[in-house]
Amino acid sequence: MADRFKHVALVGKTQAHGFRPVLEEVAQFLLGLGLEVSVEAATAEANGLTGYDALPPEALGRDCDVAVVVGGDGTMLGFARQMASYGIPLVGINQGRLGFITDISKERYREVLPPILAGTYEVESRGMLEGQVLRGGEAIYTGLALNDVVVSRGGNSGMVELRIHVGDERVANMRADGVIVSTPTGSTAYALSAGGPILHPSIAGWVLVPIASHTLTNRPIVLPDAGPVRMEIVSGRDTSVNFDMQRLASLLVGDEIVVRRSAHSVKFLHPKGWSYYATLRKKLRWYEG
Amino acid sequence: MADRFKHVALVGKTQAHGFRPVLEEVAQFLLGLGLEVSVEAATAEANGLTGYDALPPEALGRDCDVAVVVGGDGTMLGFARQMASYGIPLVGINQGRLGFITDISKERYREVLPPILAGTYEVESRGMLEGQVLRGGEAIYTGLALNDVVVSRGGNSGMVELRIHVGDERVANMRADGVIVSTPTGSTAYALSAGGPILHPSIAGWVLVPIASHTLTNRPIVLPDAGPVRMEIVSGRDTSVNFDMQRLASLLVGDEIVVRRSAHSVKFLHPKGWSYYATLRKKLRWYEG
Amino acid sequence: MADRFKHVALVGKTQAHGFRPVLEEVAQFLLGLGLEVSVEAATAEANGLTGYDALPPEALGRDCDVAVVVGGDGTMLGFARQMASYGIPLVGINQGRLGFITDISKERYREVLPPILAGTYEVESRGMLEGQVLRGGEAIYTGLALNDVVVSRGGNSGMVELRIHVGDERVANMRADGVIVSTPTGSTAYALSAGGPILHPSIAGWVLVPIASHTLTNRPIVLPDAGPVRMEIVSGRDTSVNFDMQRLASLLVGDEIVVRRSAHSVKFLHPKGWSYYATLRKKLRWYEG
Amino acid sequence: MADRFKHVALVGKTQAHGFRPVLEEVAQFLLGLGLEVSVEAATAEANGLTGYDALPPEALGRDCDVAVVVGGDGTMLGFARQMASYGIPLVGINQGRLGFITDISKERYREVLPPILAGTYEVESRGMLEGQVLRGGEAIYTGLALNDVVVSRGGNSGMVELRIHVGDERVANMRADGVIVSTPTGSTAYALSAGGPILHPSIAGWVLVPIASHTLTNRPIVLPDAGPVRMEIVSGRDTSVNFDMQRLASLLVGDEIVVRRSAHSVKFLHPKGWSYYATLRKKLRWYEG
Repeated sequence: MADRFKHVALVGKTQAHGFRPVLEEVAQFLLGLGLEVSVEAATAEANGLTGYDALPPEALGRDCDVAVVVGGDGTMLGFARQMASYGIPLVGINQGRLGFITDISKERYREVLPPILAGTYEVESRGMLEGQVLRGGEAIYTGLALNDVVVSRGGNSGMVELRIHVGDERVANMRADGVIVSTPTGSTAYALSAGGPILHPSIAGWVLVPIASHTLTNRPIVLPDAGPVRMEIVSGRDTSVNFDMQRLASLLVGDEIVVRRSAHSVKFLHPKGWSYYATLRKKLRWYEG
Repeated sequence: MADRFKHVALVGKTQAHGFRPVLEEVAQFLLGLGLEVSVEAATAEANGLTGYDALPPEALGRDCDVAVVVGGDGTMLGFARQMASYGIPLVGINQGRLGFITDISKERYREVLPPILAGTYEVESRGMLEGQVLRGGEAIYTGLALNDVVVSRGGNSGMVELRIHVGDERVANMRADGVIVSTPTGSTAYALSAGGPILHPSIAGWVLVPIASHTLTNRPIVLPDAGPVRMEIVSGRDTSVNFDMQRLASLLVGDEIVVRRSAHSVKFLHPKGWSYYATLRKKLRWYEG
Repeated sequence: MADRFKHVALVGKTQAHGFRPVLEEVAQFLLGLGLEVSVEAATAEANGLTGYDALPPEALGRDCDVAVVVGGDGTMLGFARQMASYGIPLVGINQGRLGFITDISKERYREVLPPILAGTYEVESRGMLEGQVLRGGEAIYTGLALNDVVVSRGGNSGMVELRIHVGDERVANMRADGVIVSTPTGSTAYALSAGGPILHPSIAGWVLVPIASHTLTNRPIVLPDAGPVRMEIVSGRDTSVNFDMQRLASLLVGDEIVVRRSAHSVKFLHPKGWSYYATLRKKLRWYEG
Repeated sequence: MADRFKHVALVGKTQAHGFRPVLEEVAQFLLGLGLEVSVEAATAEANGLTGYDALPPEALGRDCDVAVVVGGDGTMLGFARQMASYGIPLVGINQGRLGFITDISKERYREVLPPILAGTYEVESRGMLEGQVLRGGEAIYTGLALNDVVVSRGGNSGMVELRIHVGDERVANMRADGVIVSTPTGSTAYALSAGGPILHPSIAGWVLVPIASHTLTNRPIVLPDAGPVRMEIVSGRDTSVNFDMQRLASLLVGDEIVVRRSAHSVKFLHPKGWSYYATLRKKLRWYEG
């Protein structure tokens, strides 16, 4: 059994109305467990949560030994990215709708959180992508993604054409609405909508999914994460790239997006007995007719 | 550079008409290179190839240090399975149509084979599946597959229902025409037709692809090859299972098909500069409009 | 407003356990409305329903002016096919799970049925397929289908190859697990699982859906129902054809399956305000995340 | 046999380099057949084609009895839309790559065009869509489409949510990258890339195809063209709509896109013996492994 945690970072949505009561309730619950609690500064401010120690993400990463995130998968992904270099594990409480990652319900956290925070949990490690945008060989942007890196055509372009390499090997030129490079974590998000397969989190690979590919045989390809994926813009006006939610627009022909495995990974904590497949079954409603 | 090969096993189709001349030609070519040549016994007999040393597969596996297979991917897969426990590498010459594995054309083997047989080549290792059918806990069948293990509904059954486990974890019950467990090698064959992704050969995993799944959200899942996949027949009359081409019919409700990584793998030799992606581009016509 | 109905044919499942009470209840309810009730003979026998007028389907078709079917879509389709030449309309009561056609729940039929039987309803007409199997130019089988006609490979065949014509025009040779010709009614059944689109019931056409097509660009095609679809078996052992549930096996190379619009159609009655799209939304769970 | 044509409108690409010689050649060929030839003004100017009667589209529509379009499907669609209200038929000569509509090759037009222009041809009529964008109930834009009307998310929006109605019936709310309403003509273009079926040109319907739909069961639906399709923007920033190539950006939440059957249709002329399915077979490479 792992050591019990002592100092919790509490993080929540910043754009939801009426979110303060649930955060307050969770904060009090954690204090009641004898834990030290620091609230993420933006969360505290957006929700008017005063009377708690409020710290910016970097201080939370340095000082806390676990984070409790209240919200949906989006809130979790955003904060997890910020914690990537600090290595503190995260637990997610969802707001009514089960998430793929935020799997503890608001109704059950009072019974489920204490054993986790006392050191009894399943830990699940998720890899991340590190991407760069190169222009004339110079990096003009660098970003991290836990879900996916997506290159998309601009609104005025019929399609974008990308020349894809994996390591030094040429894969193909793809003409499509865009191309997704998705981690196993992202494989149940946008990539799934675009026709990709589900990747079990322990797969040491990514899936490359073209969106509405002009060539019908350009099917999703699962690639090893050993070498970088390079996507050079061959044609397309105002192409953009998204790293999870962060967007860089106005890419130019000749720009190159390079995606590689990040040295960092994220640790999610789940209740003992948690099952990846059980979450899939519930979220994708496999149990029903 | 690897040592040059000395003793070649020559294998070809057994059911094609007019196949003898090309085999004869390849045999003479190999002898002309100063190599010892043994012809697989069934190949020799089916094609009326006399005057060569004819040996059964097990003797070829024991005595030869390389195999040259003339035919399509099907011929190659069949012989590769037989060689699995001997570890000798294989080279494929196709008969007019490029194969995913048999990538050397009849027109070019005279220039392409000599350097390979002299020890200059790309080697590519492909994993295999080992499957068992259990009835009442007893193994009633064991087989190897380089492409896939396919469980299919019987002709009189509307569908088959399978209870799927990976290791000890329950995945889902799938109601479908069938379920494919495909290696990376098989991912460009039947699994692709059924909607699966392409898996790069270096992925240490399989893809589970339901065929015409009743539940629309039962999408292909890429699984690590660490644990066995177990498929128990919950309902369905006259269900069958196929290991590559070998078929076992008349399975019963309660029978279980267990698929795990084989201890064996197969080595294919390709010309220097060979590229997996180049083969995909050609076979799937990615270069065209 | 249409005339009220006077003589109801009551039909139910024949293979379900404990089905008698609900049939009895519905029969008494209909009698209580002052209607004459005849029970389909096989339904009466299978469920031990005595004390009612029991008639074979043809007598029901001749004597009754409406049918109430208790069960799932399968029961409804089976009986609807039998009533095709008589033209009597049908109402469906489902057994707990909403059907695409059997849209009235067991809980609500007491309030929903009376207005329908009094002549206030939405009527929906569904076209049927008439199929023939020709061997050496002679019809060896004729069948009707409300959902689909499916040609499938035999269990020992890797695939079936069909030469498809529409009217006198050649469409393509398809190599696949099989080919579905589906009505709009069938488009939400097997054809949907195989990757076909949904066809609104008022479309005067069919959709041709290859199952796990060898050629990836062989996508579903929506065809006008003006001309017959002809599918000739080019290769494949023990190919079979299904007309809804009725199966004809052991087809031979050279056999031809010809599918045309049936002169008959089926009328389903729904409560006032019934909506086709509302059923889609519920069955396909479009309202959910 | 129809009357022979007398006055040809000649139209070509306006943005291709070195396109003048082929236009000149076709113009001379048509004059040599004794036909009157007028060149579309923008074509003449862009390609420096002097010495011919140059007319704007409306004059061509009024004065000519047939149009010969040299270029790809895009050039054809653009000009066909402009001719919609005049009813003159069109013939297409492609520039090396077979089009779905421009089916006569540069190499063969000298033998294929004369009989068509003499009145021996297959005529094929293709329906069009007429779309309006309503804001606060007022039409702020009206457009025609031969292929499709596409509503797309803006580059800064994760998705667009549309509330879809057909006639007065609610279909569904769709959250996706966008939604395509495609004619049979457009069904082999963008809609096919997004997962839609092929619609035979004689189908009196459209297909609604969501692009990368958030809800996996939101499958393409084939709708009768009897009633209008209405799509109201429920959420999404900077949503745009495209009518074939013409784009209207910066749509607002609450805007409504209404698509109905146009009163106009387009007539394409093909050589005798032309077959729709033969074009599909060639374009989609159905004849190959």
